[in-house]
Amino acid sequence: MNIALLQMQPHPATPELNFARIASAARSAQAFGAQLLVTPELSLTGYAIANDSARLAEPRDGPLVTRLLQLARATDLAIVAGWPERDGADVYNSAVLASADGVQCYRKCHLFGAAERAQFRASDVPSQVFEVAGLKTGLLICYDIEFPEMARGLALAGAELIIVPTALPASPGQRRVSEVLVPGRALENHVFIAYAGLCGAERDLRYEGGSVIVGPDGIDLARAGRGEALLMARLEPGARAAAALENPYLADRRPGLYGA
Amino acid sequence: MNIALLQMQPHPATPELNFARIASAARSAQAFGAQLLVTPELSLTGYAIANDSARLAEPRDGPLVTRLLQLARATDLAIVAGWPERDGADVYNSAVLASADGVQCYRKCHLFGAAERAQFRASDVPSQVFEVAGLKTGLLICYDIEFPEMARGLALAGAELIIVPTALPASPGQRRVSEVLVPGRALENHVFIAYAGLCGAERDLRYEGGSVIVGPDGIDLARAGRGEALLMARLEPGARAAAALENPYLADRRPGLYGA
Repeated sequence: MNIALLQMQPHPATPELNFARIASAARSAQAFGAQLLVTPELSLTGYAIANDSARLAEPRDGPLVTRLLQLARATDLAIVAGWPERDGADVYNSAVLASADGVQCYRKCHLFGAAERAQFRASDVPSQVFEVAGLKTGLLICYDIEFPEMARGLALAGAELIIVPTALPASPGQRRVSEVLVPGRALENHVFIAYAGLCGAERDLRYEGGSVIVGPDGIDLARAGRGEALLMARLEPGARAAAALENPYLADRRPGLYGA
Repeated sequence: MNIALLQMQPHPATPELNFARIASAARSAQAFGAQLLVTPELSLTGYAIANDSARLAEPRDGPLVTRLLQLARATDLAIVAGWPERDGADVYNSAVLASADGVQCYRKCHLFGAAERAQFRASDVPSQVFEVAGLKTGLLICYDIEFPEMARGLALAGAELIIVPTALPASPGQRRVSEVLVPGRALENHVFIAYAGLCGAERDLRYEGGSVIVGPDGIDLARAGRGEALLMARLEPGARAAAALENPYLADRRPGLYGA
């Protein structure tokens, strides 16, 4: 499988500009022969939308996701993007994977900080495994991946690839999330991880970037710096088995000792 | 708290040479003002002792640990070292923390590979938290730290410092354990980690080194290369609270979602 990952500068509360950026990345990914394009957290609307999120929120069959689905079909890609999802009176921080097969959605379970808690409802539904271009795949969003239990749950459910739209605040501490936590999750679970972040500045926020595609041995396949970037990499089918041969983590677990 | 960590070239099945190396590191650590010295997995006997481990094995009140206890008292240090522990017909891969207060022991729960399984019995007792120089501390051994559940269990039991004697085989894949998994454990649990490895060659084995002292923000306080090294670092009392302020992982966990 070939995968593309867009690290992007968002335009706050301006979906048409964000969609145009995603569409150009999709055409580039298609030309490269990718089957999947991953974009950041809330990539369709921008992340710094505190006062606008209720107004921008749409259900998963609304115009934002419908247009993404049309783009996915036109480019023969699976495309992951984020948007504020309306469900009755509630708004979730959601990610959608749109493809010829329709849409798969995930709502963020671990909200980060007071601003997200003011805008969104935290989901109580763990991520599920589905198929993308033959790979068993799970979705998490940003802060979710920093809790080892979340990626472990997906790996035990059979996930081979974990897709993570994200938006890291700019700081040396947050950089370690991208440099050690995300590669560690890939290694300890022998999964591929596609971690796609926002970059640049948006209203009063500055982002760290830190996007990376990691192999199941914890080694980067491609890593972005701090500016806009489009990463493409091939996920080798044999890489998971090779990593498990060196350290058979999933086989050597001892769940009886993991009481807490 | 000041901590010292010895990355050492072992002498296979030659306890007197290994003890002499640990004793010289203890005198150096004492002169630096350290309260704790950490040495690698099976540091008292060497690790590559397959045919000799049953012969070398001793109970925790045998001469190997008794002599270490005398060294700890003479240098006013807590000293962590590893040895094959005899308990009736069983031999465990154990670590001891010897100090003026006596000894605390831990037996490895996750044995690595066929050679360890042939030599040792795997322990069924998870690691416990105890106090060292005022810090709540837990012991793990090598492969144990690669399972996120083990460090998480200690953190939830209140551990502030996790001590890990280790022996990484030389390989790029194993290097990622030291570079990403170990710093990731420190960050995701907001604990200090002292990860002390063997280096060089011993019989038919070659070691990666990779010793590191990591802060609770996942940033290295000191890191060794591939040869013998003695690292010393100060563990700042406020570092855990500062890391938790940026990403309050333990407070933001949602155990109800971590079914598996």
